[in-house]
Amino acid sequence: MQVIKKVEELMGDAKWLVFQEEYNNKLNGKYETLFTLTNGYMGIRGTFEEGSEGERPGSFIAGIFNRGEAQVRELVNVQNWMRLKIYIEGEEIRLDRCELLEFQRILDMKKGVLFRKTVVKDDKGRVTKIEGYRFVSRSNRHRSAIRFFITPLNYEGVIGVENLIEGTVLNSATHPKYRVKHLKVVKNESICKSGIYLETATTDENKRIAVGSTLRIYNLEDINRENIAFFRRFIPLGENSAEYLEFKGEREKTVVVDKFAVTYTSRDVEKDLLKNAVENDLFDFVSRGFDEELEKHIAEYDKLWSVADITIEGDEEADIALRFNIFHLMSSVNEKDPWVSIGAKGLHGEGYKGHVFWDTEIFMLPFFIYVYPEAARTLLMYRYNMLDAARRNAALNGYKGAQYPWESADTGMEETPKWGFDYKGNPVRIWTGDLEHHITADVAFAVWEYFRATNDIDFMLNFGAEIILETARFWASRCEYVEELDRYEINNVIGPDEFHEHVNNNAYTNYFAKWNIKKGLEIIGELKENYPDYYYAITHKISLTPEEVEKWKEVEKKIYIPYDKDKKLIEQFEGYFEKKDYVIEKFDENNMPVWPEGVDVTKLGDTQLIKQADVVMLMLLMPEEFDEETKRINYEYYEKRTMHKSSLSPSMYAIMGLKVGDHRNAYQSFIRSAKVDLADNQGNAVEGIHAASCGGTWQVAVFGFGGLEIDREGVLNINPWLPEKWEKLSYKIFWKGSLLEVTVAKEEVSVKKLKGRETVKIKVKGKEMAL
Amino acid sequence: MQVIKKVEELMGDAKWLVFQEEYNNKLNGKYETLFTLTNGYMGIRGTFEEGSEGERPGSFIAGIFNRGEAQVRELVNVQNWMRLKIYIEGEEIRLDRCELLEFQRILDMKKGVLFRKTVVKDDKGRVTKIEGYRFVSRSNRHRSAIRFFITPLNYEGVIGVENLIEGTVLNSATHPKYRVKHLKVVKNESICKSGIYLETATTDENKRIAVGSTLRIYNLEDINRENIAFFRRFIPLGENSAEYLEFKGEREKTVVVDKFAVTYTSRDVEKDLLKNAVENDLFDFVSRGFDEELEKHIAEYDKLWSVADITIEGDEEADIALRFNIFHLMSSVNEKDPWVSIGAKGLHGEGYKGHVFWDTEIFMLPFFIYVYPEAARTLLMYRYNMLDAARRNAALNGYKGAQYPWESADTGMEETPKWGFDYKGNPVRIWTGDLEHHITADVAFAVWEYFRATNDIDFMLNFGAEIILETARFWASRCEYVEELDRYEINNVIGPDEFHEHVNNNAYTNYFAKWNIKKGLEIIGELKENYPDYYYAITHKISLTPEEVEKWKEVEKKIYIPYDKDKKLIEQFEGYFEKKDYVIEKFDENNMPVWPEGVDVTKLGDTQLIKQADVVMLMLLMPEEFDEETKRINYEYYEKRTMHKSSLSPSMYAIMGLKVGDHRNAYQSFIRSAKVDLADNQGNAVEGIHAASCGGTWQVAVFGFGGLEIDREGVLNINPWLPEKWEKLSYKIFWKGSLLEVTVAKEEVSVKKLKGRETVKIKVKGKEMAL
Repeated sequence: MQVIKKVEELMGDAKWLVFQEEYNNKLNGKYETLFTLTNGYMGIRGTFEEGSEGERPGSFIAGIFNRGEAQVRELVNVQNWMRLKIYIEGEEIRLDRCELLEFQRILDMKKGVLFRKTVVKDDKGRVTKIEGYRFVSRSNRHRSAIRFFITPLNYEGVIGVENLIEGTVLNSATHPKYRVKHLKVVKNESICKSGIYLETATTDENKRIAVGSTLRIYNLEDINRENIAFFRRFIPLGENSAEYLEFKGEREKTVVVDKFAVTYTSRDVEKDLLKNAVENDLFDFVSRGFDEELEKHIAEYDKLWSVADITIEGDEEADIALRFNIFHLMSSVNEKDPWVSIGAKGLHGEGYKGHVFWDTEIFMLPFFIYVYPEAARTLLMYRYNMLDAARRNAALNGYKGAQYPWESADTGMEETPKWGFDYKGNPVRIWTGDLEHHITADVAFAVWEYFRATNDIDFMLNFGAEIILETARFWASRCEYVEELDRYEINNVIGPDEFHEHVNNNAYTNYFAKWNIKKGLEIIGELKENYPDYYYAITHKISLTPEEVEKWKEVEKKIYIPYDKDKKLIEQFEGYFEKKDYVIEKFDENNMPVWPEGVDVTKLGDTQLIKQADVVMLMLLMPEEFDEETKRINYEYYEKRTMHKSSLSPSMYAIMGLKVGDHRNAYQSFIRSAKVDLADNQGNAVEGIHAASCGGTWQVAVFGFGGLEIDREGVLNINPWLPEKWEKLSYKIFWKGSLLEVTVAKEEVSVKKLKGRETVKIKVKGKEMAL
Repeated sequence: MQVIKKVEELMGDAKWLVFQEEYNNKLNGKYETLFTLTNGYMGIRGTFEEGSEGERPGSFIAGIFNRGEAQVRELVNVQNWMRLKIYIEGEEIRLDRCELLEFQRILDMKKGVLFRKTVVKDDKGRVTKIEGYRFVSRSNRHRSAIRFFITPLNYEGVIGVENLIEGTVLNSATHPKYRVKHLKVVKNESICKSGIYLETATTDENKRIAVGSTLRIYNLEDINRENIAFFRRFIPLGENSAEYLEFKGEREKTVVVDKFAVTYTSRDVEKDLLKNAVENDLFDFVSRGFDEELEKHIAEYDKLWSVADITIEGDEEADIALRFNIFHLMSSVNEKDPWVSIGAKGLHGEGYKGHVFWDTEIFMLPFFIYVYPEAARTLLMYRYNMLDAARRNAALNGYKGAQYPWESADTGMEETPKWGFDYKGNPVRIWTGDLEHHITADVAFAVWEYFRATNDIDFMLNFGAEIILETARFWASRCEYVEELDRYEINNVIGPDEFHEHVNNNAYTNYFAKWNIKKGLEIIGELKENYPDYYYAITHKISLTPEEVEKWKEVEKKIYIPYDKDKKLIEQFEGYFEKKDYVIEKFDENNMPVWPEGVDVTKLGDTQLIKQADVVMLMLLMPEEFDEETKRINYEYYEKRTMHKSSLSPSMYAIMGLKVGDHRNAYQSFIRSAKVDLADNQGNAVEGIHAASCGGTWQVAVFGFGGLEIDREGVLNINPWLPEKWEKLSYKIFWKGSLLEVTVAKEEVSVKKLKGRETVKIKVKGKEMAL
């Protein structure tokens, strides 16, 4: 007999909880993002089950993209299974139409469960308590469920419950200029063992999405859970599938409504077998029961948290905010599906169309490398699986090797829109897809970073090497030889700082290109020497000749890096120092930079103001390339010119600041980064979680305050620094297969090896240790 | 060059206007009904173009019914063409999300035009004036249009306009227990000469409904009406068709947005030619322009009002309220379509599923007979066209002749639902479809009433006679011979009073059956004597033999009529006087009866309380059958026992009261009846107009206060009585082809013949006159 846990019984400690205390239609969009539940297979926004004004419902399945009439392929907002409407004596009850006597929603991050506690008073004075919770199972990723506890407090009467799967879903629903309907309903049917079924097809490739759902309604007190609904009706309603049930509500008697939902796509199962798969899984789900699946789901979260959790003692706000970032980041990955990655907005919203940017490799991946290497490998496998597309991309652009797209979806082809509109409705050309080439080196870099931390030689030999070689090859073909100067240049690019387009010899890009080619050369040497079978296989597979490798060496040696030796200043790109020099002097109430006086914001390319860390990013990612003084000088120079118009920027400056001894802004930047969605301080939380910022926040905690760094010799260094009020910081990481626990207190740093057989050498504050 | 009339320029005198002065989401449903525009071909509820909370949009086309999964055939809520959304710099503007600096909607009854005057202030402080009007053309019934005047008052910026045809429409949308989707979208396409097109098909019979729409956007000041939209996008959105346009809004500069819509169905045009028909008519509509169609539309209304208008001097409230009833009644008819009639809720809402009841023949038809005989004939032609179905109905029930269904839709078969639910969710059997047989005689009666007033011998010979004969035949077969008593009885029926079911020998029913058979006998005699060709044709067509006619005579003579000779009381049905006798003694604040103490409302059949006029109705319809004393006695008896639970009841008592000299309640009943929707005093205005009450209101004005009556000799009598504050009442009627104007002042009654060549004999207050 499974025990039904009421809301209070299931909910965990305060340190795991995120609250919504007040109902406001205008905040629906934000809270839907904060309260998105995802298991990496699907993401369900935290929309109220019964619907509300201003809602922006969204249900997404990783890898389900469609172009249709959109500019580019978009993560499809698929049919929404989470509707559950309540009718009291025929009248629809909605939060925004009732007086709310009590209202709370609580995200329990430990369990991946979203709670609601509401007591509503309707027009007719009837008071109803509606509590419940929902989850999107991490155990069986196809399953999700909602449980409602419904208690009429001052009346009795017929209560209706409508179970809905809504297929009337658009992408960009609130933007008539961009609205697209990516789905056609192909089946809207009843399920023979009770339930409703809606199957849709994407308009381009006829990918199928199948959702089945059913209800169980019984008295809380009834241990046999006998059905109490005396009326049920299923009627297909065009694009929506709905069943309506009624039961007799009695005063102060609690009824449980369990809603079960199961989702499969033609990525999982053959089209013809989809309905069957849904029916069977749904029946099994219902038979085993809500509570069994919930337990398994919670057990999976326990496993994840056992490594991923970071505790900050002495600063509850920071502690919970950091946990919130980790929660969404680790929830967003599906370690079992190497054909999908994590989009810039997770599976939490439609922002950036579900596309994958460098955000994944540079900002999110470190978390997975150190905390969840299996998932890190899967994320890199996505890039490996897209390698053929990257080869096509390169060929289409006249290059060799593999060129990763700036924005990547399910096919791996370039999906950056070419045009947008300014606020006046004028078309604006978007150049990033054409010019932001550093992504290709970023992917190669991530492969190396993963390998460095894990020693996963199997991955490197079978997949990683091919990525590094093909990207090295891209760069060798990308660099242009300038005879007069006997050097190779990379012209007409956009670096990480997107204020400046069509620039030549962007330092970040050129360094990374150089690194990428160099790493390719290293790999080819290593293969030839130690893994000759792989050497022959790969050179054959990618048709790489010794002559071409010789060419790489030449290019690598002669890539031009703009650098002012006297001032130790790296020029962000060739000619950057000649731009109009504005220095940021004022900060707003959030300590964010204010545009210096006189700046023409339509011509930022003419100034030295930059959008986000660029040279500083370079120095963070390749610390071994630059001495301390160079880092400090460049940090100071660029910090005064960085507008932080990307949510990724402040956290990177915070880490670099900590490294060069500037602790001033570190804490504030950390909090800002940690709360970018919680406080919605960019005003766009509605579009989805800032997934890169989640990763960046983790990086500030671990690489910044936690002081984790890999030195030139590949040894793990720990040089922490804690903000004033932090008493203790502790985190766990995997390093070369061992699990280490690092605890930083005011005076003391301790590192424990929790798992792993081999001895691990590390340096703590410069002192070598062996674990 | 057509002149654009601004709102103020087009709007008429106050006596023609109905205002909504205050915005309240909860009143949306009511005002949608009050502000429904219909031309008898289609009805469009007065929903706000931009949508709002609590709205109940509805678009109906006469004759488009579907059963689908519903209990019975329903008037289909078809795709909604009237959406027009406004976006200011990308943000959707809706009345219920903005601060309303000004708000008014005005129905101009003279022109059949709905105006809106709104000034909204959005979240960002932008103030926009949005005024406009719409009409559903009475000239070309396929056309309808909306005009918006949009003026940014304190800003400039891109303004987006979205033109939508919504196919995501359900019937009973707010009742999940009854929701039905009657339509499938079959085409969602662009129109080549600009516009959008949505074609749907009913699920059962594949009837097609095709709607095309387009916009024209130009500066108010530009006499050439050059397009100012610089962006347009059409994308099919599943069940919705939408186009989105943008223009540059300038401060205090008014832009005109004209939305044109054209509707055709497969009742009008072959399926394959539908899109073509819509495209051509739309293009012609746009080319000739909004203003030309509007003028023609207004000219049609002028024609209607030239006869239909009634003026009440000295009582503005009554004057406007009466006009409101006439407006909706006359708007609801399509004199050109003899396959449709007017449903109990007009084309104004989903109430009673668009079905036609006795309401049409008994309550509405008199208006048309006297004011718009051409339309009255068309309404009767609907019954003639359903005669085959009525024959099938009779045969299915084991009777001869033609039995009209209690609820009639497009096929003429019985469409009364068999089951409903009580408020506890228990099924309740509905017996009216099985037992409320008087409808069949009501139809025959209406045929005669029309003929009596018009002398339309062509109609009578070709159509009317057949109806009267086949219904007479029904009654002859329906009556049961009781040997012991040597009489014919009609057992197990429901009379007009629906509190009592399964009653025997209901006076109304038996009188009408007797009348119907007698009229059949008269007709057959008249045909034989004066129209032998028709006599032979019709007896052959309906296989009527002299023997059967002999049988009718026998039945007619021996039909039992319950009547207490001593008391001069007509017993509503056999055994009625033995029921528990409760007398109404208390009235609520609206002077409506309060249930007498001790009544069990679940067992009303055991009491003498009645729902609505029954015996009184009989005496009203057949005044020549009863002497003054009988009328008075029965009026007084039943008045004390009538709960007026039908909106039709008070007005009928008012007329009878005036006839028997009881003026007490006449005025109040008149106002209540006139304002049943305006004041929503039954709380169900949302479901559609009370069309029978519109007719009843007209009858109180003309038959009651106006004193119009046909005496035993068929002479028009005028015996008026005016309420205290009325100075003058004047109305027009057609009588035997002549148009008469009756003016009743306090002291004086004058009757003028406005048209007609023949001399008309009438009696005014007993005095004979010849006009």
